[in-house]
Amino acid sequence: MKGLAMLGFHKVGWIDKPVPSIGPMDALARPLAVSPCTSDVHTVWEGALGDRHGLILGHEAVAEVVEVGPLVRDFKPGDRVIIPAITPHWETVPSQMGFHQHSGGLLNGWQFSNVRDGVFGEYFQVIQADGNLAPLPDGVGPEEAVMLSDMVPTGFHGADNAEVSYGEAVAVIGIGPVGLMAVAGANLRGAARIFAVGSREICQSTARLYGATDLINYKNGNVVDQIMEATHGKPVDKVIIAGGTLEAFEWAIRLVRPAGIVSNVNYLGTGEYIKVNRLDWGLGMSHIKIIGGLMPGGRKNIEYLSNLLKYGKLDVKPLLTHRFKGFGYIEEALMLMKDKPRDLIKPVVTI
Amino acid sequence: MKGLAMLGFHKVGWIDKPVPSIGPMDALARPLAVSPCTSDVHTVWEGALGDRHGLILGHEAVAEVVEVGPLVRDFKPGDRVIIPAITPHWETVPSQMGFHQHSGGLLNGWQFSNVRDGVFGEYFQVIQADGNLAPLPDGVGPEEAVMLSDMVPTGFHGADNAEVSYGEAVAVIGIGPVGLMAVAGANLRGAARIFAVGSREICQSTARLYGATDLINYKNGNVVDQIMEATHGKPVDKVIIAGGTLEAFEWAIRLVRPAGIVSNVNYLGTGEYIKVNRLDWGLGMSHIKIIGGLMPGGRKNIEYLSNLLKYGKLDVKPLLTHRFKGFGYIEEALMLMKDKPRDLIKPVVTI
Amino acid sequence: MKGLAMLGFHKVGWIDKPVPSIGPMDALARPLAVSPCTSDVHTVWEGALGDRHGLILGHEAVAEVVEVGPLVRDFKPGDRVIIPAITPHWETVPSQMGFHQHSGGLLNGWQFSNVRDGVFGEYFQVIQADGNLAPLPDGVGPEEAVMLSDMVPTGFHGADNAEVSYGEAVAVIGIGPVGLMAVAGANLRGAARIFAVGSREICQSTARLYGATDLINYKNGNVVDQIMEATHGKPVDKVIIAGGTLEAFEWAIRLVRPAGIVSNVNYLGTGEYIKVNRLDWGLGMSHIKIIGGLMPGGRKNIEYLSNLLKYGKLDVKPLLTHRFKGFGYIEEALMLMKDKPRDLIKPVVTI
Amino acid sequence: MKGLAMLGFHKVGWIDKPVPSIGPMDALARPLAVSPCTSDVHTVWEGALGDRHGLILGHEAVAEVVEVGPLVRDFKPGDRVIIPAITPHWETVPSQMGFHQHSGGLLNGWQFSNVRDGVFGEYFQVIQADGNLAPLPDGVGPEEAVMLSDMVPTGFHGADNAEVSYGEAVAVIGIGPVGLMAVAGANLRGAARIFAVGSREICQSTARLYGATDLINYKNGNVVDQIMEATHGKPVDKVIIAGGTLEAFEWAIRLVRPAGIVSNVNYLGTGEYIKVNRLDWGLGMSHIKIIGGLMPGGRKNIEYLSNLLKYGKLDVKPLLTHRFKGFGYIEEALMLMKDKPRDLIKPVVTI
Repeated sequence: MKGLAMLGFHKVGWIDKPVPSIGPMDALARPLAVSPCTSDVHTVWEGALGDRHGLILGHEAVAEVVEVGPLVRDFKPGDRVIIPAITPHWETVPSQMGFHQHSGGLLNGWQFSNVRDGVFGEYFQVIQADGNLAPLPDGVGPEEAVMLSDMVPTGFHGADNAEVSYGEAVAVIGIGPVGLMAVAGANLRGAARIFAVGSREICQSTARLYGATDLINYKNGNVVDQIMEATHGKPVDKVIIAGGTLEAFEWAIRLVRPAGIVSNVNYLGTGEYIKVNRLDWGLGMSHIKIIGGLMPGGRKNIEYLSNLLKYGKLDVKPLLTHRFKGFGYIEEALMLMKDKPRDLIKPVVTI
Repeated sequence: MKGLAMLGFHKVGWIDKPVPSIGPMDALARPLAVSPCTSDVHTVWEGALGDRHGLILGHEAVAEVVEVGPLVRDFKPGDRVIIPAITPHWETVPSQMGFHQHSGGLLNGWQFSNVRDGVFGEYFQVIQADGNLAPLPDGVGPEEAVMLSDMVPTGFHGADNAEVSYGEAVAVIGIGPVGLMAVAGANLRGAARIFAVGSREICQSTARLYGATDLINYKNGNVVDQIMEATHGKPVDKVIIAGGTLEAFEWAIRLVRPAGIVSNVNYLGTGEYIKVNRLDWGLGMSHIKIIGGLMPGGRKNIEYLSNLLKYGKLDVKPLLTHRFKGFGYIEEALMLMKDKPRDLIKPVVTI
Repeated sequence: MKGLAMLGFHKVGWIDKPVPSIGPMDALARPLAVSPCTSDVHTVWEGALGDRHGLILGHEAVAEVVEVGPLVRDFKPGDRVIIPAITPHWETVPSQMGFHQHSGGLLNGWQFSNVRDGVFGEYFQVIQADGNLAPLPDGVGPEEAVMLSDMVPTGFHGADNAEVSYGEAVAVIGIGPVGLMAVAGANLRGAARIFAVGSREICQSTARLYGATDLINYKNGNVVDQIMEATHGKPVDKVIIAGGTLEAFEWAIRLVRPAGIVSNVNYLGTGEYIKVNRLDWGLGMSHIKIIGGLMPGGRKNIEYLSNLLKYGKLDVKPLLTHRFKGFGYIEEALMLMKDKPRDLIKPVVTI
Repeated sequence: MKGLAMLGFHKVGWIDKPVPSIGPMDALARPLAVSPCTSDVHTVWEGALGDRHGLILGHEAVAEVVEVGPLVRDFKPGDRVIIPAITPHWETVPSQMGFHQHSGGLLNGWQFSNVRDGVFGEYFQVIQADGNLAPLPDGVGPEEAVMLSDMVPTGFHGADNAEVSYGEAVAVIGIGPVGLMAVAGANLRGAARIFAVGSREICQSTARLYGATDLINYKNGNVVDQIMEATHGKPVDKVIIAGGTLEAFEWAIRLVRPAGIVSNVNYLGTGEYIKVNRLDWGLGMSHIKIIGGLMPGGRKNIEYLSNLLKYGKLDVKPLLTHRFKGFGYIEEALMLMKDKPRDLIKPVVTI
């Protein structure tokens, strides 16, 4: 079978590999819709995961089940399913503790395009199919549903970890597709005022669509000052970091109230230290909580999030600025994510 | 001053009383908008609080501050404020534990028209003004804001105690004004599918406006059967009880999944026992949680909820089906709440 | 192989069955120490699970691994392991939600002597071995460790669900072995005053050992009155129900403060309804929470609890009043659990 | 009246001041037992709070009530009470949110020897007496009870914020009196293995008394390496920072497992930044939570903690290495805290 792979640093290309053989709890799937992710870009062009040769990329897909192992109970060939970016082993101690993202070790719940071939192949293997596939709901198209693999759960995880509640003021730093879903997630947890920090026009207008009340452009000056001016000096309740450099943490701690939360969902690709200013952090006594986490995957999370699309509570179509048709276009879509033209939020390829 | 009071069981009328004198942390206020509540009806015509003679009724008001005690820091005469139905003493042990509703004893955080004169007087006293007044935000009218005294916080408390989260299925039993706000609250916490159980047409159509996806009329048959048919036998995640009789608890426990939550915000006026079926409750092993609670009041809660109106996240105008102008109309508005005509959700009187 | 089985209502006996064949993620084990449980008594003599013919009983065991499936990573033949009473499938949606007890349906995480043969056979099968076996720590004997299968996790779950915290007053109703572990669990979560409600002398003296400060004998009068007299009328913070009839819930709701918790871990074998008095429950407004749940099983929970024995924080030896040596004594031990002589807390059989 | 005051940087001395006049909700108290705190040392000799002239020091006291304002309900002259170090205004928005420590602004719940005169005077004022005094329980001596003002609640807050639960491994960095109480607090929340990091012999032996299982001396080499060797490379579940420099945070993040917690209760007096290593923190995806907070004060917290002494669950006498009798000895006791002789844990002065 063919697949779009990392050939080495800075190098992607199509390779041939045997169709993967699956275990008794696994499924073999063939993609119906896929989307490249900024993480794929980090992997290839920043070497975030170290060098790899011949690793098929991609971790966002809607697919058709082609084959299932003998222990799979709930899925059968022909089923149309959503594949989460995070597909852990569920019987491990970390999974039992509620942190399947770190099943088998730090970040190891992230399997595709990390520790096994990703979804940019003609076929791919999903481990523990009953735990890691979610049925594609009636009335939800594959193009939209592919946003449930990573963009929606990552953005919403930012809002969940920030424990956003009714009437709060929330700042979202970075409004690419993940940040936009953090805006939507904060809005769907009852935030009242949402500051969306970003510069691209398409992202700003889409942020407003998802519930942002205030748009902050870092090109117009210091982000902290701009927000504090808008609030007349009152700190916000929560900050979600969904983009930017490590400096965003310094902004966040200055922006947030005592006992507020700084919630990171940005994959931090470069830099040595996050710095927490001792005085801004109240000499260690402020109760400002700092947390960052990989999105929760698995069937339950994706099923519940898919309900939001099914029942009309969340519309992801505004994210899909670039649509392609045909397996061969995956490379072009990936390059778009790398080059980020002004009119891009997220490309999707249907197959 | 004049006030509309309970004169005894089944009897209301206008009385004269001296203007209350206030303590050093208190405020004296005069109402700008008030709304009668089903609780006022319970108090007078069901004797829910026992017999009372000459107790001024009412606990939902927007007001102007007329006078403040010398220890009040944040409010001054002329300020326009929202008055929560629950106005506790904040220094007590229960308040420190997070349950100011029971400050000074079970339900004792509920002061107006319970342990002191209510807001249906020309003036009324608010204890601990800095803790119990919330500024009326710019751009929010008194008529709308009066829904923040009780209807919004009570309904939203139902959704909070139900710990509604992204993509869940929630059933709301009873869709008077509190139930409608429970629907809105569940929706604003990210529920996907919301069953609204009620029979009046205006309530049903308004429920849909607030996010209900399925309308269930108990007049059309067994509520549990109707919902289970709609879900193909899958239990819902959470049930919020905002109306009905004690039987609603039996429905709720049959409707909810293992480890689900039954959250009551209905003031249970009659009946001896809530009954929890041993088998439906999984022999005591199901992890189905049962909780019921009086709304949280005080400044913080009302301020945060008022942000939802200020930033356009919640529109309470659909609740206001009957509007009156003039202090004298409070009695007529109260009678409406008692008689519940088919086109009523909630009356409001501006003064 | 031989096993002690339920032959039908009120009837146990030894039967012969083939050694179970295991799946790729499973283990085959042979018991080193087992203990009968009151649940076995419920199953056989009260028919709590319905009629069964030839179902091998028992769900508390320490064992030696005899064989493992090809997908098992962390265990191998010869390993000595603790077997939790609850051994679910971990990839299911309920397990992913944190309620593996209901994996595959209400209470279905309870497999042994319920939906598959129990541990009172010469061999038994453990599904998903990596998720459901816990290593026997060095320095902890099999006789003690078998208390980690059910008694410790069930009692401690009662304290966990009661959210016991520093300095609280807790009443534990029922002080058989589970209730005693609820006392120990409350003590290890920082309770200050612990009321132990029970009548047998050995249970009372052992309760004191585990941290009970006040012993209440229901034979000496009304339990609520006795506790309220001791506290001068102040309600307790939490009640854990670990025995008694359904009436215990009525006591509990009268004993607990507003916003307190009633936490049940008693398997409720008979009766139709738990009754919650409307007035005691504050007209549905008291914030008193009622919860009941089956113990959490699986590797993580048992591993962490076993650390308490390993590091000397919990001593379960006082529970082991009756010790037997030899597979054949299982029946005698079971009869002890049924007949509950005055000097019994818990029997254990080493093999 | 006389009081021991900060006269300026590096300078303490006795001054005369008028007896404070109290407000309607306040109490006037005279100390029965006091204890100097490392924070007093920070204030005077590190200028942590900025320069002050004539501010009476001290925030740990047991006292007798001398006078109460007319609105005080629960206390009267002659009552013996424990005074928490943190005595906030309870009606403020931060207090209503559960963070009374920041009532009136960051750290502003800390009043004594910060924004008002402390307890090292012949008399001192306690604001909102009903909310900020806790009765001295029968059978608990003033010398012991004074440990409830700050040492016990601060150490226990470290364990609370670390969300220590049954069977966990916890490292406590710094084992002065606060760190020792963090050890005791972790132990009373069910930790199994507790690493106590410190060098002084008296602190080490006392740590063992409070439940430490492993003593780590930073003088014997790298702390992270020593702990990781003891655990065979397995990270701990939680780290509580109760002493040391900002470097302790770097250790902590390397010591803790994915989804673990780093909980700080050390007053961070010097240094510019806490540094969080990007790789150790899992590229922002590890779910390791970082939190730091000032102890909770007020009546409820101190009352509940005092129950632990009353019912024999916690013995603070091992902390009291140096005892003085007479008001005049406060200065000597303070100097001990500054000079930290090898045999000191905590001095106490009864009056």
